[in-house]
Amino acid sequence: MKCYTAIALEGFPLIIEGQNIAEEIVEVAARNSIKLENGDVIAIAQKIVSKAEKRVIDLKKVIPSEKARKIGAKTAKSPRFIQLVLNESSRVLKATPGILLVEDRRGLICINAGIDKSNVEGSTNFALLPQNPDQSAEKCRQEIGRITGCDVAVIICDTYSRPFRTGQVNFSIGVSGLKPFKDYRTKKDLFGQVLKVKNVAIVDEIAAAAELLMGQANEARPVVIFKGLMEIVEPCDACRSSDLFISKQEDLFKGTL
Amino acid sequence: MKCYTAIALEGFPLIIEGQNIAEEIVEVAARNSIKLENGDVIAIAQKIVSKAEKRVIDLKKVIPSEKARKIGAKTAKSPRFIQLVLNESSRVLKATPGILLVEDRRGLICINAGIDKSNVEGSTNFALLPQNPDQSAEKCRQEIGRITGCDVAVIICDTYSRPFRTGQVNFSIGVSGLKPFKDYRTKKDLFGQVLKVKNVAIVDEIAAAAELLMGQANEARPVVIFKGLMEIVEPCDACRSSDLFISKQEDLFKGTL
Repeated sequence: MKCYTAIALEGFPLIIEGQNIAEEIVEVAARNSIKLENGDVIAIAQKIVSKAEKRVIDLKKVIPSEKARKIGAKTAKSPRFIQLVLNESSRVLKATPGILLVEDRRGLICINAGIDKSNVEGSTNFALLPQNPDQSAEKCRQEIGRITGCDVAVIICDTYSRPFRTGQVNFSIGVSGLKPFKDYRTKKDLFGQVLKVKNVAIVDEIAAAAELLMGQANEARPVVIFKGLMEIVEPCDACRSSDLFISKQEDLFKGTL
Repeated sequence: MKCYTAIALEGFPLIIEGQNIAEEIVEVAARNSIKLENGDVIAIAQKIVSKAEKRVIDLKKVIPSEKARKIGAKTAKSPRFIQLVLNESSRVLKATPGILLVEDRRGLICINAGIDKSNVEGSTNFALLPQNPDQSAEKCRQEIGRITGCDVAVIICDTYSRPFRTGQVNFSIGVSGLKPFKDYRTKKDLFGQVLKVKNVAIVDEIAAAAELLMGQANEARPVVIFKGLMEIVEPCDACRSSDLFISKQEDLFKGTL
């Protein structure tokens, strides 16, 4: 029978800067009587990675540029906040009242470069995305391997709005140890016909599957462990979350919004 | 401990027109020794619903209009196929070589109105989306309730490309018995701050979680049963998949592609 189980670690502590996320995961899993095993896929919410990596910034320390003031006026957002977003972005896609949509330095298209203040302590503190979420995932995976001897895969994920549909879903922003796609091109269907297009972004589907347990408010469940995905996931050491980015030229949806 | 299990029904038969999907699900679940229970969420691949509902069409029987011929020339696709897509669409968003992107009659923005021929028998046969996937989901849910006495929720899902990212993911196109969103707005985070934006499209996340087991080729696993989601999912009788559609005016991403 093909099945998998998604398990949220309960009682995960508040993470502060400098903490070792991998050690926390191993400890909390043990307290939850969950044995980490080869082939487990571990999904981690971006926020705790950002906190551990000192990626929380006090808005009061940000000095807005002239550009930030202009965009601030256009979007009705604080120029300091805009500066924070600009520091993390390679280009602004849209700046209209209430909306600042950018391509972030990593290549992610998202609102406010993924910067937000939910579950961040301090009224003027904001969490930025990890500098390099693939590296963060890789480090966490290596550390878990070192402590437990297990070869796991790690996904760092965050929740974003998407075009054409209401609401947000979780996406993968960092991966280590697994191929982001399951490629069906050249495979045959039930009637022997060769599939030509399907290349499923399973790493985003795993991120989405994890969010169901993580929640967004005060659930304190930033880590979800998947057991049983090893038959679906293909191991990959060189794969990166940037494999998920598409150039504007190649984007099928170019010119439609 | 917060967890859920996703289980694919194995040995699902090929579905032909007129078949009762709900009866098949109940029978195959029993053969798989899976007990259907109140609160189960059942994800069903669109393709078997389309087949059961006689939504498979032979391209040879389609007569292309002048418009279909023009779009066929533009996209380098068969005018008969284009006509099939036009019949199912309310507007064409993009027609360029190799790409026909439309808003389908239901409001879904997708390539080829979701029409494809993977896992459809016959070299000229194509499967259209169900006429009304919400109604299909509702019917299936009622039938499963009638046979088993269980109150389950049903999601009908299909795999689509999305803007800004490579690859496809599964989305929900029909729902019955559950609210498509988990709304965190007005809820408090770990530090008592009120969340303002988060309204997670959990029904799409469940669809994504299901695809991991379904596959796209000859896996013959079109049905996935989720156990343990009842704490996450909110029951809803009046909810529809159209709740997931956003108008172009309201789309945050308007003007960015």
